[in-house]
Amino acid sequence: MTSPATDQPPTRADGRAADELREVRITRGWLDHAEGSVLVEFGATRVLVAASVSEGVPRWRRGTGLGWVTAEYAMLPRATHTRSDRESVKGRIGGRTQEISRLIGRSLRAVIDYKALGENTIQLDCDVLQADGGTRTAAITGAWVALHDACTHLSGLGALAGEPLTGSVQAVSVGIVDGRPALDLNYAEDSTAEVDLNVVTDGEGRFIEVQGTAEGRPFDRAMMDALLDLAVVGCGRLAERQRAALEA
Amino acid sequence: MTSPATDQPPTRADGRAADELREVRITRGWLDHAEGSVLVEFGATRVLVAASVSEGVPRWRRGTGLGWVTAEYAMLPRATHTRSDRESVKGRIGGRTQEISRLIGRSLRAVIDYKALGENTIQLDCDVLQADGGTRTAAITGAWVALHDACTHLSGLGALAGEPLTGSVQAVSVGIVDGRPALDLNYAEDSTAEVDLNVVTDGEGRFIEVQGTAEGRPFDRAMMDALLDLAVVGCGRLAERQRAALEA
Amino acid sequence: MTSPATDQPPTRADGRAADELREVRITRGWLDHAEGSVLVEFGATRVLVAASVSEGVPRWRRGTGLGWVTAEYAMLPRATHTRSDRESVKGRIGGRTQEISRLIGRSLRAVIDYKALGENTIQLDCDVLQADGGTRTAAITGAWVALHDACTHLSGLGALAGEPLTGSVQAVSVGIVDGRPALDLNYAEDSTAEVDLNVVTDGEGRFIEVQGTAEGRPFDRAMMDALLDLAVVGCGRLAERQRAALEA
Amino acid sequence: MTSPATDQPPTRADGRAADELREVRITRGWLDHAEGSVLVEFGATRVLVAASVSEGVPRWRRGTGLGWVTAEYAMLPRATHTRSDRESVKGRIGGRTQEISRLIGRSLRAVIDYKALGENTIQLDCDVLQADGGTRTAAITGAWVALHDACTHLSGLGALAGEPLTGSVQAVSVGIVDGRPALDLNYAEDSTAEVDLNVVTDGEGRFIEVQGTAEGRPFDRAMMDALLDLAVVGCGRLAERQRAALEA
Amino acid sequence: MTSPATDQPPTRADGRAADELREVRITRGWLDHAEGSVLVEFGATRVLVAASVSEGVPRWRRGTGLGWVTAEYAMLPRATHTRSDRESVKGRIGGRTQEISRLIGRSLRAVIDYKALGENTIQLDCDVLQADGGTRTAAITGAWVALHDACTHLSGLGALAGEPLTGSVQAVSVGIVDGRPALDLNYAEDSTAEVDLNVVTDGEGRFIEVQGTAEGRPFDRAMMDALLDLAVVGCGRLAERQRAALEA
Amino acid sequence: MTSPATDQPPTRADGRAADELREVRITRGWLDHAEGSVLVEFGATRVLVAASVSEGVPRWRRGTGLGWVTAEYAMLPRATHTRSDRESVKGRIGGRTQEISRLIGRSLRAVIDYKALGENTIQLDCDVLQADGGTRTAAITGAWVALHDACTHLSGLGALAGEPLTGSVQAVSVGIVDGRPALDLNYAEDSTAEVDLNVVTDGEGRFIEVQGTAEGRPFDRAMMDALLDLAVVGCGRLAERQRAALEA
Repeated sequence: MTSPATDQPPTRADGRAADELREVRITRGWLDHAEGSVLVEFGATRVLVAASVSEGVPRWRRGTGLGWVTAEYAMLPRATHTRSDRESVKGRIGGRTQEISRLIGRSLRAVIDYKALGENTIQLDCDVLQADGGTRTAAITGAWVALHDACTHLSGLGALAGEPLTGSVQAVSVGIVDGRPALDLNYAEDSTAEVDLNVVTDGEGRFIEVQGTAEGRPFDRAMMDALLDLAVVGCGRLAERQRAALEA
Repeated sequence: MTSPATDQPPTRADGRAADELREVRITRGWLDHAEGSVLVEFGATRVLVAASVSEGVPRWRRGTGLGWVTAEYAMLPRATHTRSDRESVKGRIGGRTQEISRLIGRSLRAVIDYKALGENTIQLDCDVLQADGGTRTAAITGAWVALHDACTHLSGLGALAGEPLTGSVQAVSVGIVDGRPALDLNYAEDSTAEVDLNVVTDGEGRFIEVQGTAEGRPFDRAMMDALLDLAVVGCGRLAERQRAALEA
Repeated sequence: MTSPATDQPPTRADGRAADELREVRITRGWLDHAEGSVLVEFGATRVLVAASVSEGVPRWRRGTGLGWVTAEYAMLPRATHTRSDRESVKGRIGGRTQEISRLIGRSLRAVIDYKALGENTIQLDCDVLQADGGTRTAAITGAWVALHDACTHLSGLGALAGEPLTGSVQAVSVGIVDGRPALDLNYAEDSTAEVDLNVVTDGEGRFIEVQGTAEGRPFDRAMMDALLDLAVVGCGRLAERQRAALEA
Repeated sequence: MTSPATDQPPTRADGRAADELREVRITRGWLDHAEGSVLVEFGATRVLVAASVSEGVPRWRRGTGLGWVTAEYAMLPRATHTRSDRESVKGRIGGRTQEISRLIGRSLRAVIDYKALGENTIQLDCDVLQADGGTRTAAITGAWVALHDACTHLSGLGALAGEPLTGSVQAVSVGIVDGRPALDLNYAEDSTAEVDLNVVTDGEGRFIEVQGTAEGRPFDRAMMDALLDLAVVGCGRLAERQRAALEA
Repeated sequence: MTSPATDQPPTRADGRAADELREVRITRGWLDHAEGSVLVEFGATRVLVAASVSEGVPRWRRGTGLGWVTAEYAMLPRATHTRSDRESVKGRIGGRTQEISRLIGRSLRAVIDYKALGENTIQLDCDVLQADGGTRTAAITGAWVALHDACTHLSGLGALAGEPLTGSVQAVSVGIVDGRPALDLNYAEDSTAEVDLNVVTDGEGRFIEVQGTAEGRPFDRAMMDALLDLAVVGCGRLAERQRAALEA
Repeated sequence: MTSPATDQPPTRADGRAADELREVRITRGWLDHAEGSVLVEFGATRVLVAASVSEGVPRWRRGTGLGWVTAEYAMLPRATHTRSDRESVKGRIGGRTQEISRLIGRSLRAVIDYKALGENTIQLDCDVLQADGGTRTAAITGAWVALHDACTHLSGLGALAGEPLTGSVQAVSVGIVDGRPALDLNYAEDSTAEVDLNVVTDGEGRFIEVQGTAEGRPFDRAMMDALLDLAVVGCGRLAERQRAALEA
């Protein structure tokens, strides 16, 4: 998506080009005890991911020789502009929280070889410390790195029957802001976007999950195509950041 | 499932062509009291939708002059092959239930003019009496008809400030079965599908929601395109059934 | 209860005689998967009963060689004139729901030979699709037919140690409406009745359960006798409908 | 348990005649703060009833000028032979508890003139300190005395528009033990009874509530008549004890 | 509250000296079934303690050969001046209730030899029938006596591997009322106290628990010393009452 | 507490002297949106505190002209060595969590002038990101700084009627480790300590809260005195760190 001298698309409110990610930081080993841990930042969005390894699998999976990966997503009460009540205090988990937890779990399981993992469980806890849009995509992108480190830990213990990771996973949001496609929306953009599409890909740019919603009015096929193109570009760049973090 | 020499695609296990819907039945007025009610059937999938009209809107919306539409989805315990425990007995609503309830609500709100609706609320209850795949898409398709009847009811009361419906809404599932795209998956197909994509459109074939998951392995852009094409065809046919039901 | 030419009791608001049931319909096999299923209708009251068979019994009964039968009752939110909130959403089951579930279970267990049933469980789900008075009595009457079909299913599997059903079960409501005893109250009658009595009998007219409440003012022994007489007549007629349904 | 040659019925395990109550003690003013409070004992069954008066009525009743009476029943964990878990710890109230709470409330409301009570609420808390059968009937019998004292308290405040009590309320259990009707069953009798019938009457022996269950096998009309007769006798004697307690 | 010319401290509102306990009554065997039961009264505060013995220990302790002691504290709704809602009805246990339950359990476990107890569990249920300040300290003081009787019961069964009680436990509250230290505060004193300190000791006056809160303003070390001194005196007197009760 | 050349107390496992704090770091402004926010670290213990300001007070306090301060404490699931289940998923808040939340709230309210605060509420959220002993004392110490910044924010808005803070608050744990008093226990020390005492003071070393528990065996008055002395020293040093942080 070039921006020629004439006819160039306007930059966004925060100065980014339409196809530009926010600054992405992936800090490994943020916690002392977790088998994998990552503080992942997409701009001001800050998510702490902890990967916890445990021997054994949930009851319904026992004796199959297959492993399991699962995820939980949550926000601290003051991650957002105004404080939200704690779900523990309310005594029930909201629909949005459950939906995102399920999305993260499904996305990462797409690149797991359960047989190689053996009867081990990896639990990914994604806690949003600060939210500025894209918390679920940051969580998925960071969780993959924490998952990678947890697998390395298991490998060091000699607890694996092969390489459990069949590839990498990245996620990014795209949307229609002021009538134009834009990559990696921050909160201000997200709350005015006409369409919000979250895309999860593997390292080769193939789709793992696509979730799009017309917040304003229905959108046509041409716009769908433009959004999918943009998302695949963004995920490719996130894959590079993951690789860089693992080499650091 | 034979595939004859000539190039035609093989029929599916239940004899349908790849782009063929199951038999669709939309029975209006199934309940005596609800302001709109529909028994919608996609093959053996049977969903009872009740639209309940009430004056006023939720607290956070009062005094805005705008209406509200919301939805709840649930399954009877023996809608499925084996019995599931009731969520009322478990004391909590599962993630899947909440996710679908939210999807139905968002989908129908996409064609509502809140101002024309005035400070009235329409609650859509979608209860699955029997499940054979595609319960959420049947629910959305039927709910739009019940919503239509509830709007007519409100209009008869002189309670509207205009026409609240800006269009129609349909939904259908598509997936990759045995490596080929297929429309409107039943339970047997759904449980073996490699990809499962639910698409919600408006009456002009534009996208309201797209939710796709690679159950097996990631899928590429060409397959994405084929699935979206198929879904738009299916939604177009469902729009015809809705029109026929309203004229009946 | 004869109605002589002179002095004849007035017919009721819906044209029925004091000792007349509403139209009763019992439709078997309404669901594809349940081992027994019945749509039972007492006038506009419509209850879907599903009998689910499972091997094994609850933990506290294991190893006894005895079976178990249990029931759950619930109403769809728009079964009634005005919508009720879902108990799953409220996170707790109301007292009335639990009370009726327990009543249905006790009533049907009264005609079960646990030894003949063996260590199998039959779960009866009674979901009220539309309510117009008498939902619990319709549920019991229909549940017995679904239970019968589930036993036949188990028998076909060779899973029984004898005939588990020692008789049939019916239920009907009686009440004092405008000062006179009346059989099988509909909603309009029920909400103004001075006394509401639900009676469950076996096929020989003996009592299994009697639950009577003076909604208005206490009632005397003579009225109690008249109500019990009327209920036994009603249950006898319901037993005929059950037999007819089983022969259909 | 000998049954001598002459025709007299055998005494029961605890030496009582078939139509004999256990020792009944009604101690008023057991608590310092409650507007009415009673420790009621039926033999070893011991229930503490507190009547709490508050100005105002529940939201749904406001502005009607009518009062309200409601009840809650509960058991201390070690009221019984073996300890039961607390319902507060389990986080949900069991069906039996709710059923009895509702029964007590309905029974006492049967003798309340809401208009005379004015917009005041009386809450009856019935806590079983020790259980030996008949806890619900002891609770109702004692609650009426506490209710009486609470009305006297309101009267002293000049808060009433008349006499709220239109009569008295008593309750007793009857059952079939060893094939014979027996009055006021204790725990040992109750757990082997073939039929268990709880009867609530007003001071003139008319029925307020009748709840009978065939625990073993269905019972016929003659037995029903015998049980009702016995219950009315028992309630009459309880009415005497209530009067004596009020005069003490 | 006069303060005579000579230097003696003024008596309190209820006539007690600063270092004087309220009347303490410990009634053993208040329940028929519990292995230990005590009605303990500190003035108008009345707590029923039941000790329930069960074979076995919680899952996490199985196979260790060690026993377990645990406690639950609760208040009847009308124990207090104005009625409180039941925690079972609210569906959650309040922080205060849990805090006191934990305190009672910890305090009594301080004098238990788990090995001598063997794999048995003693559950202490402390239900406040009437509250007038000091409910937690009365509960602990009474619970120790019930615990003692439950141990005697176990000993009689030959179920012990030694003497499980290594000492006795008492508890009392002290506080600063009108600027002066006072022992065993009643409700009126407690609600105006500047500092509230609950002290649990063993029979030799050593500390098991100390929990102090400056309700008003922070207090200095000299006041802390005075309060601790007073508490130890009070606990010593309670130990005498416990001994007397055991000898009765 | 000097350590003379001979007879000097042994250093602790982590090399600290008995009266030495761990490294304390207080980082203000860790969050972008909260009116006050602090990342407080006591060694490896890391707590994120967010202070949220809102206009108005809880219902029971409205119209009094007085403000309110409250706190909630929680741990991320992998803050600890092994993962704990989320309280939101369990649907109930544990006793320990509630106890600490209440402690934090009470401690900070001890230095608030409600009148000066006016009808504003400050909510303190203390989320433990990593736990290594002393999480509640770190939370209190950090929360005071966040509270201070929130007050400054309110002052900047002109929303205060005076200076709401009447002093500062610090907290530290002391305990008996290997028979000797020690300050600011880490997890390893805490889990073997014979006594665990948490002390909250104001900036002048006066007591706000004292909570001590004999984990092992009861302790005597001399040890109590030594522990209190040590705690006051520790709190004094923490007050210096707070001052330094506010000047940074």
